[in-house]
Parts: sequence; structure tokens; C-alpha cells
Amino acid sequence: MATYKVVMVRHGESAWNAENRFCGWFDADLADCGVVEAKRAAQRLKEKGFTFDVAFTSVLKRAIKTLFYIQDGLDLHWIPVHKHWRLNERMYGALQGLNKSETAAKHGEDQVKIWRRSYDVPPPPVDKTSPYWPGKDCKYKYVDTNLIPRTECLKDTVARALPYWHDIIVPEIKKGQKVIIAAHGNSLRALVKYLDNMTDEQIMALNIPTGIPLVYELNADLQPITHYYLASDEEVKAAIDKVANQGKAK
Amino acid sequence: MATYKVVMVRHGESAWNAENRFCGWFDADLADCGVVEAKRAAQRLKEKGFTFDVAFTSVLKRAIKTLFYIQDGLDLHWIPVHKHWRLNERMYGALQGLNKSETAAKHGEDQVKIWRRSYDVPPPPVDKTSPYWPGKDCKYKYVDTNLIPRTECLKDTVARALPYWHDIIVPEIKKGQKVIIAAHGNSLRALVKYLDNMTDEQIMALNIPTGIPLVYELNADLQPITHYYLASDEEVKAAIDKVANQGKAK
Repeated sequence: MATYKVVMVRHGESAWNAENRFCGWFDADLADCGVVEAKRAAQRLKEKGFTFDVAFTSVLKRAIKTLFYIQDGLDLHWIPVHKHWRLNERMYGALQGLNKSETAAKHGEDQVKIWRRSYDVPPPPVDKTSPYWPGKDCKYKYVDTNLIPRTECLKDTVARALPYWHDIIVPEIKKGQKVIIAAHGNSLRALVKYLDNMTDEQIMALNIPTGIPLVYELNADLQPITHYYLASDEEVKAAIDKVANQGKAK
Repeated sequence: MATYKVVMVRHGESAWNAENRFCGWFDADLADCGVVEAKRAAQRLKEKGFTFDVAFTSVLKRAIKTLFYIQDGLDLHWIPVHKHWRLNERMYGALQGLNKSETAAKHGEDQVKIWRRSYDVPPPPVDKTSPYWPGKDCKYKYVDTNLIPRTECLKDTVARALPYWHDIIVPEIKKGQKVIIAAHGNSLRALVKYLDNMTDEQIMALNIPTGIPLVYELNADLQPITHYYLASDEEVKAAIDKVANQGKAK
């Protein structure tokens, strides 16, 4: 018997997803189709009677706006929204800004796959003179510069996302607050890996589709009982195939 | 010499403004033209180089969404947004939901003007069985029911809005945070009355236009040095005339 339900949503497609560029901490806006995905996510949640007391998201607008459209669809504008860099997408280092197909053509599809999917091999770090170095962005002005990553492997993303889960989100869940988390492919992987106690290989193989609410039912000890997407199996499969194919040379 | 600048914005026109109905705590959405006003407010702020560290708004979507469009225009999605019922519009009691022209025709234009503009005469209270009684709305589930007004005169709105200014907003200003407040005609009147030490009569005569940023420059003791709208005198006058004419029988 589930004591708690937590809903996660990966942001809808961004302008950079559409261009197939490594985005990471670059603050790309939602594409028009990403707005549609976000509104559809709201509709899926509404149809199933979901409501929320508190929301968590990153400091990146593609996640914040996805959440906003969900709030708008559920008439939940008024709930508190907590935004934190620990829920940001994985920082892709020197790959940020590059077209994924070009990167694959240049470095080889296998190398790109390693950088994108291997658990503990980060891409080359971004140079601090690069416009993609987030250390000068006012979003992070209260963050110790030493904490701002120049690159990340998924292991790094897990390590910096989990403290936010444990310290900020879990206490709200335990208070009985109904929680929604609107975030990114890799910050959500971090939570899923922890919750389902997945191996490094298992999480590497997992693709979370964009814009489809993922429900985790947890027992009183916050152990997952089950999880499921609010969409048909066909819709989920098609959406997973779409994100899994990113990064392949075309 | 100004030490601090605080920006206030009254939400853009709502669906109920357009219908000329007393709205108060009813959670009407922005009208399409209200969205345009909010985006224009963002543009006015951007042109003048304004940026913000933290935002305050009510729990009503017409203010929250006005703020969202301003954040979107200024690329400030990531800043903390604090939402509180103390910044809500004045609670119009049993007048909520009524068409203003009809109310004026029924009770007389003078009586409506008294209810809308007199400082200490509240309209009749809303019945607790009415759909307009906010006590059952989940937005207020953590608020002591005794604090939820059944009606308010402007004096009441001032009394409940000022604690939020003093306790929550002022400490942020004194820390040097650049503050924007997106709220309502009467909750903003409450702040303006306090800041400019206006008499009851003066504040009754003051109309704050929708969607035009109002900048207060304050000294180190938070005394106003000057205030101004980010629009031409003609634009401000036209916008004030528009809101001042609401509530007159047509």
C-alpha cells in the first residue's frame, strides 16, 4: 500500500533539443512543441486527478516553464515552487553548444555515446573563458564557484542532485506534501537510480521520455512500491525512442 | 540619492475586469489583453535595464501570471517567487461576482463608489455558503480561518497587507535584494499609502494603472525619495482613466 506518491516530469523539447545540440546548463527555452508537451502533461495529470502542494525544479527555464504550464493546466499557480541548481541537467562540459550529430561525426559515435551514457567518464571540461562556463551567470551568484561544475559524468550529477532530494524534497514528502519535480533527463535519472537502487549499467540504459509524468509510489520508508508513466505503453515507447536516438550521427 | 529601488506592477486586465465584475479574491485568469499588458511591462523594464533578485506576489493567478510574463521577458525565470494571500486584492464581500454596472444600477452609483473607494466602509460580507467564500479554497488551507476576510474595506486591506511588507519584503530590500512586487490595485494602494504617508482621502483618490511598472526610489531608511511610472504621462493618464471608470453604471 503506497503511503506517498511523487511525480517527476522531464521538461518538454527545447530549442536546442530540436537542433540536436548538447544543452546541459545552457538555458535554452522550450520549443513550441515543448510547450505542447508540457500542456499535455498537465492534461494527463488532470485526467488522473493529481494535485500538488509543492513543486521543485531547476534554475533552467525549460524546466521552470514546463512546470508553469503544468501549474496553469491544474490551476495550481499558487503552490510554492522551489528552484535549485542541484536539479539542473548534467553539465556537458566542452560539448555544450555543439551539434550532437557533428560531435558524433568528429569524435565518433562510440565516443559520444561514452560521454553521454557512461556512468563515470566526463567529457572534456569547459574553459572558464567560454560563454558556456556558468560561473559568471547571475543564477549562480550565491553558489560557491568550486561547486559549479566544468563538466560532469552521470556519477557527478547523481552526487550533486541527491543532497537536494534528501535534504529538501524528502522532508516535504514525509510531511505529507504532494510533490511534483520538473527537471531534466539526467537529474531525474539521479533520483530514479537512487530510488530503484539501480546499477551504473542499468541507469545508463534508462531513457526518461520528455513531457510524460512519471509517478513513483513509495511506502512509509520511501521505498518504491511501483512506478508508471501517465501514458499508454505505445506513447511511452515512442517518446523513449525519440530521446534515445539523440546523439547518433545522422 | 536613492539607496533602494522597488518596483510594483498591478496585474494586467483579467477576464473579470473585461466583464466589469467585482473580482476581489475570485481567482480570475488574465484576459488576452492582460497578457499583452504583462509582456509590455517586461519590455518597459528591460528597456530601462531593470533586473530583480526576488519577486513577491499574491496567490491569485492574474498577479502570478503577470509576474511570470515579466520574468519571461527579462529572462528571470530562476529568481525566487514568494506568493502570499496578504498581497491579494481587496476582498469585496457580497459584491464579488456581481457585474459592476448592474450593482451600480441596483444600489446606486454613489453607494458603489462608497464601497469601492471609501476607506473604512466595507461592503456586505460574503455568506460562508457562497462559492465566493474563500475559506474552503485549498489555497488557504494553512491559513487560520479567522484571518480569511468575508469582506474588506481598504483600511482592512492595508492592515493585512502591511505585515507582509514589514516582515517579509523589507528585510529583503535591506539586504540589497532588488525586489519586484506583482499584485493588485488595492494591495498596492496599501503599500503606497504607507510609503507616501497618504491620508485616507488621498489614497481613495489614487488609481494605479494596470501593467505599468511603478518604481519607488527609497533612501537608506526606506523613505521614498521619488516615484514614477515607466511610461509616458499620456499612457499613464489613459490607463488611470480606464481603471477609474470601472464601477460606473453604463
